[in-house]
Amino acid sequence: MKNQLDFIADRLEKHIAETKKITATPNKGITRLPFTLESKRCVHYLEEQMKQLGMTVSEDASGAVIGVIQGKSEERIMIGSHYDSVEHGGAYDGMAGILCGIEIAAYYIRNNIIPPYTLEIAGLNDEEGARFGGGYLSSKAFLGKWSTNDLKQYVDKNGLSYYDAMKLYGLEPEHMIRAQRPLSKWKGYLEIHVEQGPILENAKKEIGIVETIVAIKRYYITIVGKADHAGTQPMNTRSDAVMAAMGLIHHMNEYVLSHKPMVGTVGEIHVYPNEINIVPEEITFSIDVRSSKEEWLEECIELVEEDLKELEGIGFKCKMKPTLTNTVTHMKTEWKKVLKESADSLGFSNMFLDSGAGHDAAIIGKAVDTAMLFVPSVGGRSHIPEEYSSEKDLAKAVLVAIDFINKID
Amino acid sequence: MKNQLDFIADRLEKHIAETKKITATPNKGITRLPFTLESKRCVHYLEEQMKQLGMTVSEDASGAVIGVIQGKSEERIMIGSHYDSVEHGGAYDGMAGILCGIEIAAYYIRNNIIPPYTLEIAGLNDEEGARFGGGYLSSKAFLGKWSTNDLKQYVDKNGLSYYDAMKLYGLEPEHMIRAQRPLSKWKGYLEIHVEQGPILENAKKEIGIVETIVAIKRYYITIVGKADHAGTQPMNTRSDAVMAAMGLIHHMNEYVLSHKPMVGTVGEIHVYPNEINIVPEEITFSIDVRSSKEEWLEECIELVEEDLKELEGIGFKCKMKPTLTNTVTHMKTEWKKVLKESADSLGFSNMFLDSGAGHDAAIIGKAVDTAMLFVPSVGGRSHIPEEYSSEKDLAKAVLVAIDFINKID
Repeated sequence: MKNQLDFIADRLEKHIAETKKITATPNKGITRLPFTLESKRCVHYLEEQMKQLGMTVSEDASGAVIGVIQGKSEERIMIGSHYDSVEHGGAYDGMAGILCGIEIAAYYIRNNIIPPYTLEIAGLNDEEGARFGGGYLSSKAFLGKWSTNDLKQYVDKNGLSYYDAMKLYGLEPEHMIRAQRPLSKWKGYLEIHVEQGPILENAKKEIGIVETIVAIKRYYITIVGKADHAGTQPMNTRSDAVMAAMGLIHHMNEYVLSHKPMVGTVGEIHVYPNEINIVPEEITFSIDVRSSKEEWLEECIELVEEDLKELEGIGFKCKMKPTLTNTVTHMKTEWKKVLKESADSLGFSNMFLDSGAGHDAAIIGKAVDTAMLFVPSVGGRSHIPEEYSSEKDLAKAVLVAIDFINKID
Repeated sequence: MKNQLDFIADRLEKHIAETKKITATPNKGITRLPFTLESKRCVHYLEEQMKQLGMTVSEDASGAVIGVIQGKSEERIMIGSHYDSVEHGGAYDGMAGILCGIEIAAYYIRNNIIPPYTLEIAGLNDEEGARFGGGYLSSKAFLGKWSTNDLKQYVDKNGLSYYDAMKLYGLEPEHMIRAQRPLSKWKGYLEIHVEQGPILENAKKEIGIVETIVAIKRYYITIVGKADHAGTQPMNTRSDAVMAAMGLIHHMNEYVLSHKPMVGTVGEIHVYPNEINIVPEEITFSIDVRSSKEEWLEECIELVEEDLKELEGIGFKCKMKPTLTNTVTHMKTEWKKVLKESADSLGFSNMFLDSGAGHDAAIIGKAVDTAMLFVPSVGGRSHIPEEYSSEKDLAKAVLVAIDFINKID
């Protein structure tokens, strides 16, 4: 099997080179937002590859493209990832996982081997949420989680909803429920994805076996104080929104730094009136905390809430708006072991690690047995045009996945 | 003299009501930017009032309007403030001081008293710097501080320079030097201004006698780290620009809070890429520190510089761009005493205080003997449409100023 590594890597390189061309921003990375022309071109490309291999191909109600190859058992393993991207992202995030899925199918077909399970190779739509702020569109659709009303709630920056955009694209949002899959027929879900972080690279490992996809809590916090002249208002009679926020962010950061593994980010800050000589009246900032230990997130958020209460006690007006709560998704314990055996038997260095990013596997893994493989990200970078993972490393994940599929009972 | 208080307050009220109409934003406060139609209308209004009183009126090369009333001595005391405003400011900042000056002249004229010194009542142009980012235009022009080249450097948001705007307005920027006043003829400068802070109101004082106009240091600081995925990059391998800045701002704030009188403000913050799920690559923020103790500003800025050096030591790129350095301006010691005697003899409660805001008196006070009176600002607020000081309090300052002029030798 291992002698096919270079062959698979070459095929992946060719497919990456082709899909890299499908972008709305050819001079600045990959921008493949859902329900756009790029989205449609990408679906066509994937369908074409699957058809050439002789797979039965269909597009579901969410815009996911699915190629099926019949196995010895009717039970199905879905191998998928997403074909959408963030704005100005890279060529590997999502797409690499789909192409790996196609290579897994291609391996069985090329070698005239009937896989033990019926395989569904899935190119999922809108995992990132980069256009409508939703995300996990196809994976949630598989679980029947979208109502027509939901689809009308999420809108893009032009005010167009999922619902409107799907209609324009030629899909029927009223029939989204048709994308729901009967759980009884699923053996499980497997996703190959670039790590998007530096852990594998720093540890010099070829394969990462995901243990959990971390819990995430996200909020926008607004603190309103009082605008004042930066010269004439003494410090003790100010209600400076920025200084108030600094204290809170400092506390949050200290908590995060003293708990491992945990991350915390204040990525977005808006100050009003944002003038050099005016004491800030208002600040709105985001907080994003993640950990595989949900109780730490709770504790950290309680700390933030206490700080806000204290600020309200001294006259500030505070608001804390939750925008995302993802609970931990555990990968199937036995499958993690099998993946490790497969990687070891193929001689690929490997390690267990958590996923700090959300993935379709985080949604699907709540409903069916799920496993996830990470491939090293060069420089630990992703969501940028320079994003890169070697096709050889991706091919290693393909081989581990095939061995895994053959080994699980 | 005190029996004229209500009469003067009534006149001030009328003038404030009239000048309040001269704004580019009639529905949102006073916007009277230099070298605009509002600016011209305002100059005409002031000229008209001065002429009606029989003063000799002229407009200088900087756009300042000056009315002269001959005194017993040829030596001149200038009594002035500025007629420009910030965007969406109030009706009292600057303008109230000019109108008080006119009332001082009117008192002498009405009562057929020749003042001991020749009085120049000055409506100065562009103290705020709200259009070109410069400011102190007329007061610097009096001291011959503008070169033609300088006037070409400062531009408004449309790219129009002082130089261009002055030409369009009908002034001759090449002849700015004509606004320079021979220092030998000046007895000194007196400015009446609203406090713009809460100190007089909180202390329940009718008159504030300024001791010093504080030193100001202003910078823009940029810290560049590394953008990363908010989930996949562990805390110990991040270069988070926001978290780096928090530490520095916290240190600055602690220093300021432990030194009195001193104020420090971070009024402006820009984060890049400013997205909820990306570790911030870059932050630019302003710092504005003020105190009558210049050594404290030095020390505070050294602290900031040390923090930046530390950050550079761990891989951040930092830049610190000074945008303003005003040294302390001391009001003339003997004149402060005379002002206090005048206020006391008239029975007006009073106190000494520093000015945390810059004023034309800060510029002119570096060259000639200068004194400054503050009038309480209701709620301590200014630079907003609701800005208010009572005309009766302003009239009290007028009477103190007249008594002061009569008392100094």
